Amino acid sequence: MDANPILAQTMRGNWVENRHRGAYVVIDADGIIIASAGDIERPIFPRSAIKSMQALAIFARHADSQFHHTQEELALACASHTGEDLHVGVANGLLARLGLSADDLECGAHQPLDAAARAALRERGEAPSSLHNSCSGKHSGMLSVARAMGVPTQGYVNRDHAVQQQVRAVIEAVIGEPLSEARCGTDGCSIPTYAAPLRAFARGFARMATGHGLSTELATASQRLFDAATTHPHLVAGTGHADTLIMTAFKGRVMQKYGADGVQCGAISDKGWGYALKCDDGNIAASLAMVSALLLDIAEPDADQRKLLEGFANQPIKSVRGAVVGDLRAVVRQG
Amino acid sequence: MDANPILAQTMRGNWVENRHRGAYVVIDADGIIIASAGDIERPIFPRSAIKSMQALAIFARHADSQFHHTQEELALACASHTGEDLHVGVANGLLARLGLSADDLECGAHQPLDAAARAALRERGEAPSSLHNSCSGKHSGMLSVARAMGVPTQGYVNRDHAVQQQVRAVIEAVIGEPLSEARCGTDGCSIPTYAAPLRAFARGFARMATGHGLSTELATASQRLFDAATTHPHLVAGTGHADTLIMTAFKGRVMQKYGADGVQCGAISDKGWGYALKCDDGNIAASLAMVSALLLDIAEPDADQRKLLEGFANQPIKSVRGAVVGDLRAVVRQG
Repeated sequence: MDANPILAQTMRGNWVENRHRGAYVVIDADGIIIASAGDIERPIFPRSAIKSMQALAIFARHADSQFHHTQEELALACASHTGEDLHVGVANGLLARLGLSADDLECGAHQPLDAAARAALRERGEAPSSLHNSCSGKHSGMLSVARAMGVPTQGYVNRDHAVQQQVRAVIEAVIGEPLSEARCGTDGCSIPTYAAPLRAFARGFARMATGHGLSTELATASQRLFDAATTHPHLVAGTGHADTLIMTAFKGRVMQKYGADGVQCGAISDKGWGYALKCDDGNIAASLAMVSALLLDIAEPDADQRKLLEGFANQPIKSVRGAVVGDLRAVVRQG
Repeated sequence: MDANPILAQTMRGNWVENRHRGAYVVIDADGIIIASAGDIERPIFPRSAIKSMQALAIFARHADSQFHHTQEELALACASHTGEDLHVGVANGLLARLGLSADDLECGAHQPLDAAARAALRERGEAPSSLHNSCSGKHSGMLSVARAMGVPTQGYVNRDHAVQQQVRAVIEAVIGEPLSEARCGTDGCSIPTYAAPLRAFARGFARMATGHGLSTELATASQRLFDAATTHPHLVAGTGHADTLIMTAFKGRVMQKYGADGVQCGAISDKGWGYALKCDDGNIAASLAMVSALLLDIAEPDADQRKLLEGFANQPIKSVRGAVVGDLRAVVRQG
């Protein structure tokens, strides 16, 4: 297998310390490649980067008609949130309307990703609940699908449960390729994740951004989800998070979502392009540097957007005492 | 630049998720290569993996004769410790004999790496001090060098300070190659770190383990430091840490030390071999899997040692709910 190119590296002093390889592709809904590097046909696990695709199941089963998801709830369904009160409240609100509670979530509990939220819990002497899990919005959305389908909610995370079959079907419809049991694993939040070519996920985002190649129903649903995410970027991630800051800065032009283990996906709406990127070694900070360099290159950022992206494309590395001793930087493509 | 081989990868379900490349070399004191993979001439930052080399400065300046370092203090000088009471106490003891205190350490303060030590500090409402810094033993040792040299301690971390010049000189003597300002950075604890070929560091460890090629004084000092580290492996790292467990299991046969950003160095004393390994992307867990596979291959482990190493060579990946959903595993070399 050929090695993917080095797309980011860390410098310490005047010498390279670490090298991060990866692949990316920018593509339109027809499959025309705008830019790419590395092996874009290698199947990768998209993890949380495709939560907006998974959320299409809410519309496919008309859970939205039955439970009237707010735009905030739709944004949170697309989120890997940081467990702040705002996020917990929105997830809780939908669960209450479904006649369910945190006990019905099967994602497991972990400490909030947001440091202030962690400290607040600790001060109150409280353990985190599954509502603090960064995936609780997605899971609440999936529970609404179970309710709309009239199936038992228990076990909704399992691969053979009707909810996950539906989620799989909408992903296949959007990326235009079958998912396979031969390339399947379980995500950190216990739901299935299927590996597929980087190119297919990027094209899926282009199709969601434009509606081209999708049924009217899926096109409309995609529009509602992208609108929700870009209108409420704080709900899609949280305080200080790159996805929140990038979507805020681009004011609806860019849908951007990271996934665990170095995945970055999104769409540039006015261009009609989708993109997908995977850092081979799973490093999230490196993948952020890579995708920021990519957006600098293709998204025609204004001055403020450029400044933000340049900060992510070149992240300082500090000593314990806070001195800058190096940086993690995207490697400019050679031609 | 040719890509180094993939030496570890993560599996999620039945598909590869992440790939970690790297290089390693096992070598004897004469420079005869026992085993290697990847580019072993590429200069890498050794970071904390060569603390035992840096600690030779204590002997080069006869600080040991003046301050009578205990074996525990020598072990802690080689350590990246986890900030437990034991570690803090040993560092404090040496500082007191030097007429110094935590205020003289220039490594900066960070939370103890050990979770129980962190929780205990928090319960007492105390902030961590520089004694909890995983490098406080090394820094206390460097302060003893400053005292023995009769130079001001202030600024002892700086590249042009007499202490760091001495540390640089002993490393050069041991690895048998000059270090260069052209490949120099600052470590997390504020002291200089110089990049040099992987091969040179491995050979340095072989020379420390055997004394071959070293002055009598450096050979004796090396023996005392390796004896200290392998006699007190808990001081070199801490509760549950791989280095502590590996050195404990090998009962003096193996000196093993990790460094930040995916470095692993050490020696197999009875073989007279040194080794050095770098994971290209800086992933510490992946580098542990790699070095464990290497030790399984070359260190002739007994059944207990084998079991321990196999656990590090194949580390489970769990969901938030604790189910095993994959693993990080060393890739067996192809021929």
